[in-house]
Amino acid sequence: MSCVPSPGIPQDSGAPVRAGVPEHGRVPKYYAVRIRLTELVDGLEVGRTLPTERELAERFGAARETVRQALRDLLLEGRLRRRGRGTVVAGPKLEQPLSLASYTEGVRRQGLRPGRTLVDLRSWPCPEGLARELDVAAGEPVWHMERVLLADDERVGLESTYIPVARVPGLDSEFDPDSTFYGYLADKVGIVFADADERLETVLATPREALLIGTPPALPMLLIHRVSRDGEGRPFERVRSLYRGDRFSFSAHLSGDGR
Amino acid sequence: MSCVPSPGIPQDSGAPVRAGVPEHGRVPKYYAVRIRLTELVDGLEVGRTLPTERELAERFGAARETVRQALRDLLLEGRLRRRGRGTVVAGPKLEQPLSLASYTEGVRRQGLRPGRTLVDLRSWPCPEGLARELDVAAGEPVWHMERVLLADDERVGLESTYIPVARVPGLDSEFDPDSTFYGYLADKVGIVFADADERLETVLATPREALLIGTPPALPMLLIHRVSRDGEGRPFERVRSLYRGDRFSFSAHLSGDGR
Repeated sequence: MSCVPSPGIPQDSGAPVRAGVPEHGRVPKYYAVRIRLTELVDGLEVGRTLPTERELAERFGAARETVRQALRDLLLEGRLRRRGRGTVVAGPKLEQPLSLASYTEGVRRQGLRPGRTLVDLRSWPCPEGLARELDVAAGEPVWHMERVLLADDERVGLESTYIPVARVPGLDSEFDPDSTFYGYLADKVGIVFADADERLETVLATPREALLIGTPPALPMLLIHRVSRDGEGRPFERVRSLYRGDRFSFSAHLSGDGR
Repeated sequence: MSCVPSPGIPQDSGAPVRAGVPEHGRVPKYYAVRIRLTELVDGLEVGRTLPTERELAERFGAARETVRQALRDLLLEGRLRRRGRGTVVAGPKLEQPLSLASYTEGVRRQGLRPGRTLVDLRSWPCPEGLARELDVAAGEPVWHMERVLLADDERVGLESTYIPVARVPGLDSEFDPDSTFYGYLADKVGIVFADADERLETVLATPREALLIGTPPALPMLLIHRVSRDGEGRPFERVRSLYRGDRFSFSAHLSGDGR
């Protein structure tokens, strides 16, 4: 344990209080390095390359393993990114609205180009839990469509959509997987997207998800569960969307109506 | 790397596809143990104690270190919890609505008893970034109130509220920190809580936060930034709320109005 002086200045509202240092002033060695590394990163422009691990270890008088642990923290939180063999300062997280707007619209709003790569599209007999959510009989055929989500060609998420085959019988032949699914439902199928329930949590990437999205395994991810309903209040899809926790935040506007 | 057979059955909508195993079928050893551990946990009731690390290592034919890594994953995700020296099966995550409703209401709705412990309450000269968010002059006195959030006496979160002293001059004398702040604002101060902007992301707990909340350091947390406005559209508070990622999920109802 090494000692870090207590900062005498007030912290800004978005930052952890006292830069995360407990009142007793002691933090693990890697965290003391992390604080100095954060100061260094704060002073650099987005996209600038960091000094090498070896150089940082010399500068901070710390072991390379300690520097590596501090770098890992800032990579997981999205302050830094890997680029080739180097580590660069990351831009702010992408901010997606929690709204009926699609992934496509959300990404476009940030000035990035949305894309999707199909991983899997097939029909299954609907398992029981899903059947309850979709209000269909267990065993009824249901599509599972899985797509990697891209922003400016970078893989940032993974989306699994479950929808009864009876609602969109032509999904596998008519739909271009690299286009907006809600656009297709509205224009070609005539499903009105009226409302949805969402639940958001943080989970660790599984090895399969890490491989598909190209992240380190066990990266904290944001997982959004969604059930969407049509104009008649009938559920038509169940979606499981996984977003890189280091690249995304979600925003909502709350108004007094719901109170 | 060890080989896990590809499951031939369809996955349910909330679970990771193919239990997280990549198409090539290879996963790290700890993840193979994690899959077997998850099956074991699925078959046990909430609150049941798991066999010891040593017993699990024997049962799975794995090193204790490997079992420990698998246990750590399920603890971080909230499937398991520490109780005394043992590890027990956890209940579902608490589900908080993303709404103007307070923490207090959200926790009560789940049948738990909300509580708050004051960590810090003092006034500061407002730093610049915060001044812009609160629409006050930099340097103007602003309260910082920091409270640990409790559910049935368990520490589950940490909340920092920033509010100009001019809006609530008597905060330090009138307000009971173990009560609802929005109730106090409405009843005693006459501030109407009209709308708010929220942004949600995942971050790692700092050592200070981990100590205050009683979590392992570097536990993935859900961080909610909020700016609330009164009936005249003036911002009156900036809140930074940190919730244990293993204990909370957030839900939202989305309707077509915003489209």
